[in-house]
Amino acid sequence: MLREKSSEMKKEACQRRVKISGMGRALGGRKICFGSQTRYRLCEGETLLDLVQRAAGQALHQAGRGIEDVDCIVSAMATPLQAIPCNGVLIHERLAKGLSVPAIDINTTCTSFISAVDIFSCLVDIGRYNRVLILSGDTASAALNPDQKESFELFSDGAATCVLEKSGEEDKSAVIYSRQETWSEGAHDTEIRGGGGLMPVFSFREENREDYYFDMKGHKVLKLCARRLPEFVQSCMEEAGISFKDISVAVPHQASRALGVIMPRLGFSEEMYLDRVDHYGNLVSASVPFVMCEAVEQGRIQRGDLVLLIGTAAGLTVNFMLVRY
Amino acid sequence: MLREKSSEMKKEACQRRVKISGMGRALGGRKICFGSQTRYRLCEGETLLDLVQRAAGQALHQAGRGIEDVDCIVSAMATPLQAIPCNGVLIHERLAKGLSVPAIDINTTCTSFISAVDIFSCLVDIGRYNRVLILSGDTASAALNPDQKESFELFSDGAATCVLEKSGEEDKSAVIYSRQETWSEGAHDTEIRGGGGLMPVFSFREENREDYYFDMKGHKVLKLCARRLPEFVQSCMEEAGISFKDISVAVPHQASRALGVIMPRLGFSEEMYLDRVDHYGNLVSASVPFVMCEAVEQGRIQRGDLVLLIGTAAGLTVNFMLVRY
Repeated sequence: MLREKSSEMKKEACQRRVKISGMGRALGGRKICFGSQTRYRLCEGETLLDLVQRAAGQALHQAGRGIEDVDCIVSAMATPLQAIPCNGVLIHERLAKGLSVPAIDINTTCTSFISAVDIFSCLVDIGRYNRVLILSGDTASAALNPDQKESFELFSDGAATCVLEKSGEEDKSAVIYSRQETWSEGAHDTEIRGGGGLMPVFSFREENREDYYFDMKGHKVLKLCARRLPEFVQSCMEEAGISFKDISVAVPHQASRALGVIMPRLGFSEEMYLDRVDHYGNLVSASVPFVMCEAVEQGRIQRGDLVLLIGTAAGLTVNFMLVRY
Repeated sequence: MLREKSSEMKKEACQRRVKISGMGRALGGRKICFGSQTRYRLCEGETLLDLVQRAAGQALHQAGRGIEDVDCIVSAMATPLQAIPCNGVLIHERLAKGLSVPAIDINTTCTSFISAVDIFSCLVDIGRYNRVLILSGDTASAALNPDQKESFELFSDGAATCVLEKSGEEDKSAVIYSRQETWSEGAHDTEIRGGGGLMPVFSFREENREDYYFDMKGHKVLKLCARRLPEFVQSCMEEAGISFKDISVAVPHQASRALGVIMPRLGFSEEMYLDRVDHYGNLVSASVPFVMCEAVEQGRIQRGDLVLLIGTAAGLTVNFMLVRY
């Protein structure tokens, strides 16, 4: 990102005068426990769109706005609701039917929310849009393999949303810095091989059932993270010109119970980051905004705080974003 | 889009000093004919990634660049290659393995390419990225219903790509204007109901096979277009401050054979727009960039020409974009 320009220019190009003016979150209605771990899954008759609607209502209420005040609906989800149309359209139908506001999907799997805030903070800052509604969430339970205990017991179904708009003159709120990288040597460490054009639904047989389940090679992911993540984080901090003490709180993607191992290795002490894996597990694309929303509700994140959104996603994609909340 | 600001400001906010510096295209290797209509489908052993790779090679060559000169890989496809990870990652693995360039998916189904150029022209203009590779394409043949003749005989498998970068000082090239709207009263007129979180792969039975096929209610789509499209186009032209005579050529999404009915109703005479449906059918997300790329190769589009990219997508989503090529 603008590597050849001066550090001064880099920071200027990266700063976007936007504000998260409202957030919301919702969990599947069926609570289950695996030992000390609590998870939530959709209950009978419930769909992800129900959770999205609840979370969006909360975010809009907090922002003091209605859906008619939004000029773009952005789905930031890892998985499709239907194969066609895109998720944004189905969300639009639920929240904004009769309005002409555009609906767009952004997808970088588990870090889709961070990527969407990255992209749309630029678009709002320059006036391409004025106020966007970003919605994350996935039906993880639709593709979990009961024979892969590690992932089967890890995920929850949930949704989380935010309203992103231009900062007022008096606001300090801004996106300060962002960077994404994709390391495709990890492309097949986290995947669902089937269900798309490469292995269509119609190729599904009992014999290849596993290809249509979520498949996470946890050890390979951890190994790749251990090898490359520390340098990535250090490089981002240097480029952004900040140090650990500047960060009020880090909101990492709730990838797995290994969070408590990874984060300290990156230099974050326990009180510096939010680990809610025991309580909610991995909410896929909703993890980051869900945990951030909870922290705002609890007062752990306050206006003016410097918040780090950080995460790894299937890809392996990594995101690092600094938000002045 | 910025409705409350003055017309002057609107146009300023919309102009982006970017240039399409290279384009490429590729078709599935199996040519089939339905009467006068020619279609292309993937042949045995071929995948969409093969077509994407060929089209990307051509675009980069034309731009005089290599993949290492690109700082973001943007998938602008309507359908997933795998359920997880996102398409951008699988393209990254094919084209850029070993590099750290980010990979991001943008999806508005058939107009994904226009949406991606819309979004990334802003990001390149402000310096968030310097040079992006945008890749469209779909394996339409993976979900066609042999019992729905209208759609079964309409689609081709293909890919098309472009390199988008900052314009040079001497270049006239720019994105002049763009607007997207989504009219979700048409959300279920074009769909594949199954295969996502709402109706997972594992619910697939012979009895509900149709839910996993592409389903297009052609008459309903046409009716919605006839009702709302003329006003949309007129409003865009007014907001952009241009008239039909300013447009060198319109590149519409090759939605169906009804293109020859729709476009004249919108005010475009036959010589003003490109209709290649007889030759290639509907290439889903690749239609617009494929036909534009062909027109550039044939000299129909030249540097300095004002090109209108316009299309309807499942949603119903509509896009209108003016590009000074």
